Amino acid sequence: MICGGFMLFCVPFSVFYQDNDWQYILLAAGITLGVGFTGWWTTKNIVNKELKKRDGYLIVTFGWIIMSLFGTLPYILTGEIPNFTNAFFETVSGFTTTGASVITDIESVSKGILLWRSITQWIGGLGFVVLAVAILPILGIGGMQLFTAESPGLSPDKLKPRIKDTAKRLWFIYLGLTFAETIFLMFGGMTFFDAFNHGLTTMATGGFSTKNASAAEFTPYIQYVIALFMFFAGTNFAVIYYLGKRKFNKVWGNEEFRFYSLTVVILTTLVGVSIYYVTDYSFEKSFRDGLFQVLSILTTTGYVSADYTAWTPFLTIIFFLLMFIGGSTGSTAGGVKILRHIILFKNSSLELKRQLHPSAVIPVRINGKAVSPDTVYNILAFFVLFLSIFALGTIAMALIGLDFMTALGAVATSLGNIGPGLGNVGPVDNFAMIPSAGKWLLSLLMILGRLELFTVLMLFTAYFWRRF
Amino acid sequence: MICGGFMLFCVPFSVFYQDNDWQYILLAAGITLGVGFTGWWTTKNIVNKELKKRDGYLIVTFGWIIMSLFGTLPYILTGEIPNFTNAFFETVSGFTTTGASVITDIESVSKGILLWRSITQWIGGLGFVVLAVAILPILGIGGMQLFTAESPGLSPDKLKPRIKDTAKRLWFIYLGLTFAETIFLMFGGMTFFDAFNHGLTTMATGGFSTKNASAAEFTPYIQYVIALFMFFAGTNFAVIYYLGKRKFNKVWGNEEFRFYSLTVVILTTLVGVSIYYVTDYSFEKSFRDGLFQVLSILTTTGYVSADYTAWTPFLTIIFFLLMFIGGSTGSTAGGVKILRHIILFKNSSLELKRQLHPSAVIPVRINGKAVSPDTVYNILAFFVLFLSIFALGTIAMALIGLDFMTALGAVATSLGNIGPGLGNVGPVDNFAMIPSAGKWLLSLLMILGRLELFTVLMLFTAYFWRRF
Repeated sequence: MICGGFMLFCVPFSVFYQDNDWQYILLAAGITLGVGFTGWWTTKNIVNKELKKRDGYLIVTFGWIIMSLFGTLPYILTGEIPNFTNAFFETVSGFTTTGASVITDIESVSKGILLWRSITQWIGGLGFVVLAVAILPILGIGGMQLFTAESPGLSPDKLKPRIKDTAKRLWFIYLGLTFAETIFLMFGGMTFFDAFNHGLTTMATGGFSTKNASAAEFTPYIQYVIALFMFFAGTNFAVIYYLGKRKFNKVWGNEEFRFYSLTVVILTTLVGVSIYYVTDYSFEKSFRDGLFQVLSILTTTGYVSADYTAWTPFLTIIFFLLMFIGGSTGSTAGGVKILRHIILFKNSSLELKRQLHPSAVIPVRINGKAVSPDTVYNILAFFVLFLSIFALGTIAMALIGLDFMTALGAVATSLGNIGPGLGNVGPVDNFAMIPSAGKWLLSLLMILGRLELFTVLMLFTAYFWRRF
Repeated sequence: MICGGFMLFCVPFSVFYQDNDWQYILLAAGITLGVGFTGWWTTKNIVNKELKKRDGYLIVTFGWIIMSLFGTLPYILTGEIPNFTNAFFETVSGFTTTGASVITDIESVSKGILLWRSITQWIGGLGFVVLAVAILPILGIGGMQLFTAESPGLSPDKLKPRIKDTAKRLWFIYLGLTFAETIFLMFGGMTFFDAFNHGLTTMATGGFSTKNASAAEFTPYIQYVIALFMFFAGTNFAVIYYLGKRKFNKVWGNEEFRFYSLTVVILTTLVGVSIYYVTDYSFEKSFRDGLFQVLSILTTTGYVSADYTAWTPFLTIIFFLLMFIGGSTGSTAGGVKILRHIILFKNSSLELKRQLHPSAVIPVRINGKAVSPDTVYNILAFFVLFLSIFALGTIAMALIGLDFMTALGAVATSLGNIGPGLGNVGPVDNFAMIPSAGKWLLSLLMILGRLELFTVLMLFTAYFWRRF
């Protein structure tokens, strides 16, 4: 029903821009709302019972898949993406806020469909951060276990004790920043339509653009604005809340935020200097491209202001490895995420200390508090699974016929919900040339990555189905 | 003194083959033995005290570095590798049983030096498996803490309660298999010199060959013999001991051995079929190349029977990922090793079970016994460090100027003590073209990998130097 509601929202835009396909979007909305309403109506008495942890895994996974199936309708019915595989890939890429696209000429696509495309990302981002703590509890579903499933091991820093208040605040931040960015972009001379679309896809760390050249199409001012909002989108929303409340000690006291900021500064410097060194760009352009692309890949947004694989092999390696970092927890960013890396790094470094003092209990500390061994275990397992899936995915993509760099890049960017990859799926290319089998596999990887692996993998275990 | 003794061993070969440089090898042996003897003589009263754990880390790390420094003397004095950086790289590659080479025309090198080159690997392999439990205890050094340092987290399945007996048995297996291979190779028509050198470098999982074309130079029979002995060299020596004693239940009851065998069978089939499919090779040749190259990379030996990067991108990816597996624990193989992968995989899979039953204690089991959480922690930390060092190493190599594939391949092969990499350091190339800075970095990575990371990294921590 949410999905259908947002499709309806696209209809007036389609009418306004005289796309001649608004009736198909309306039809898609009608089908989606119809099925959703029927489903709700026929089951509303059944779902009244309290949901269990296992139900959460099923609801989250199948929720994302069902949304993606219905989300293909506008593409297929309007004929903008007639092929089902392609439409499903594009929709999954939207709802998972990845941003990988199969559309070769974006500017020829009708405005209504472009808006729907951007909105899939915005819903995906909202879903990832807010849905689990805001919408589901209102529907009578205990949302916290779902939130645990989406951010395993990371006990969310509750802004307010009550979930409903927290959700409202997160929702307000997400919506507020989307509109703020839209307005800032319009100040730079962007049309309302382009500004709004980029606002939607930046805050979702999605990266769908309305232009073939992505962010390279725009002026330096616009690129700086997008970069700033990508930084916000990759920040823990609790930190943004405290920033708004001017509680700066809470902002800077957040270890993940410090590392995130530091990573951006160090990498921008490194990349900017490298670009300046290997190209004939001005100092400002080198810095801007460095800042923009570092933020774009780190926050898993995926806009392209320049081809990061064209400068020098060193920067290709840097951007490839950057795909395994990810943004902050509690943001819309995908990937492994900064907090997990901090804990992994601290734990490995402390392991050396533990070897010298085998009998001492030496816990990992975050923000001054000891992290429980269970959490560390969970994060280590996540990391191992992430890399195992990356390795298996790469083998499968190579078997389908992709070359070395393309296979590595396509899998890393899909699993990390980023967007552009390397090689034939690099920043200036798209995913249209990938064979169908590959598109299905990458769609699965995007969903796995977005739902933090465990949620989906759980459904493939014997433990899950035993004594249900 | 051990190092010098083995240099002396090369002198009669050099004389026999009329190399005209035996006097330089003798000089190198004299210097090495002289310094060693002087060192031993002047400190023999001091080192009588019991050594502590911290001393172990220092001795192992600096032992390997000092051996590598003196090991350059034969190369430099004979002028076969006049450049110190190159000679150090070749010696480190030997003592760490890596097998990466800077020599562009191996067949033009004198026989005495080729033997020394093979012997550095054999000493390295011996050092890794035996030195810690055999030689050091005889010198009055409690060897077990060193063995712990070299195989952290994996309590060695003691063959016999007493270390000295264990060491003798391991030594016997190592020596026995070296001679057995030499004899089997001579049956296939190899000269004694070639057979002996390949015997030395196979059992060490080293991979230095006496031929420019490596194993591709030889007949199918010889390739099968080498493949068989690579399989033994990558097997836990305890398993080989039980195999010799016909205690087959102990052999097959070893979970790591089962996985190791299974991995070889599955990958050989996969690679063999792929080769048959993409080339016009006969079925036998496809199978043989598949078997040989899978064993060569998996056991971290590094002989080359065919260019595994030339077949298809799919196989390039397979071999690249194979570099991260490694052989069995308790063998001369490098890399992450099979047992660690089994534990990582089991732990990650059990983590899903733990999420469903948060209060249950669910340990990882190996050979039916629960693995302590400390051991699992240690292995996870090892894995994270391995990949972090891989990532940082790749960045550094790219900064030095290597391209994407070459950087990835060179670092993976050095850290995993394998030998051949990808791209410009692929199976049919060598490391001569790497800039000096790169050679020093790769040498460090080889030592880090060989000493199982912790031993070396420990020296860079503040904990280690505090209250020494």
